[in-house]
Amino acid sequence: MSELTSGRLSVYLRCLNTLDAAGVKTISSKALAEQFHLNAAQIRKDLAYFGEFGVRGVGYYVKELKKHLRVILGLDRTVRVAILGAGNLGLALADYPGFRQEGFAIVALFDAEQRKIGRKSRGGVRIHDISEFRRLVKQEHIDIAVIAVPADSAQGVVNTAVQAGIRAVLNFSPGSLKVPPGVKLKNVDLTVSMESLSFFLAREDADAKSE
Amino acid sequence: MSELTSGRLSVYLRCLNTLDAAGVKTISSKALAEQFHLNAAQIRKDLAYFGEFGVRGVGYYVKELKKHLRVILGLDRTVRVAILGAGNLGLALADYPGFRQEGFAIVALFDAEQRKIGRKSRGGVRIHDISEFRRLVKQEHIDIAVIAVPADSAQGVVNTAVQAGIRAVLNFSPGSLKVPPGVKLKNVDLTVSMESLSFFLAREDADAKSE
Repeated sequence: MSELTSGRLSVYLRCLNTLDAAGVKTISSKALAEQFHLNAAQIRKDLAYFGEFGVRGVGYYVKELKKHLRVILGLDRTVRVAILGAGNLGLALADYPGFRQEGFAIVALFDAEQRKIGRKSRGGVRIHDISEFRRLVKQEHIDIAVIAVPADSAQGVVNTAVQAGIRAVLNFSPGSLKVPPGVKLKNVDLTVSMESLSFFLAREDADAKSE
Repeated sequence: MSELTSGRLSVYLRCLNTLDAAGVKTISSKALAEQFHLNAAQIRKDLAYFGEFGVRGVGYYVKELKKHLRVILGLDRTVRVAILGAGNLGLALADYPGFRQEGFAIVALFDAEQRKIGRKSRGGVRIHDISEFRRLVKQEHIDIAVIAVPADSAQGVVNTAVQAGIRAVLNFSPGSLKVPPGVKLKNVDLTVSMESLSFFLAREDADAKSE
């Protein structure tokens, strides 16, 4: 199972949430694909890997498939998250509404700057001293560490997280970080999304010139 | 050309930047694939769509391919970006180092809150009154609008952007926005990255139990 697949499962879950909210009870892979611009064969293949979810002549039961996907994605329990770095990015992530909606709990922010310690994000997430990280990881059962510090301190902060027993790291800092085997590192590069737009604009300009 | 392809081109460009910085002059699709965990056939197919970049017995010239990819992605000129919403997220995006590195210029922040107007992000991007948006889009030749406002004001802000002539929108607000045909909307869902980590942790737990 690759990371690409888990990305597609996340997309399917988002589509099923929309359908469920609209009161749709069942949907075929074909209708799901058409409605959300996906690939029906790919949907069937991705889901078949985890079990027999489709029912002949019916398709998928929306609520049931949603529940299965949440289990597969590890969202059947609250996933507990700490954010390292309480600058603008860390504070924005602490209050990002999408995380709470999908069952992630942002448990704590951490920073090294003394004047920030004890303050809270707008949404109420408290900022702790980074020296407290190890203790709070155990006490608060933190699953995921989010790195939101400047590039030059990112590797040190990741090392702190790994030494405290963290096995999953979401990194927003540019540049490549090293983690030992058994620790999963996911880098978020916001530039890729921006480039898909500049690509679109460049194509449009090229088309306009060739007309 | 799908958005998936432009995402892969972005990834190739990032790899070539790394190789170029390391002084590598030429690389085969096979070596590129192996070094960065990509698919060699997919690389050849993606690049062949835009022209004949490979040289038999040599592979790709790193600097040259980098230059071609920047043209294809519309990065051969500075792409000018405005951010709507000067909260934590908007301020974090204004100073995000990855954007500048790839040739995006964050020209201005916009907000409706009067006490913010005239201030600057830490990196020096000035916050303007949203009522000035239309005028500044023309004057500053803004290409892309980034939406970083709360969900309930997002559609209104997108409408403002589209009416001002913006054709490419990067949306960080949750929920789905409507844009007219001819305007490209790209939604960034940070939850997908977080879910790939919870997926990893759930798999690990399942494996540990079955051992």
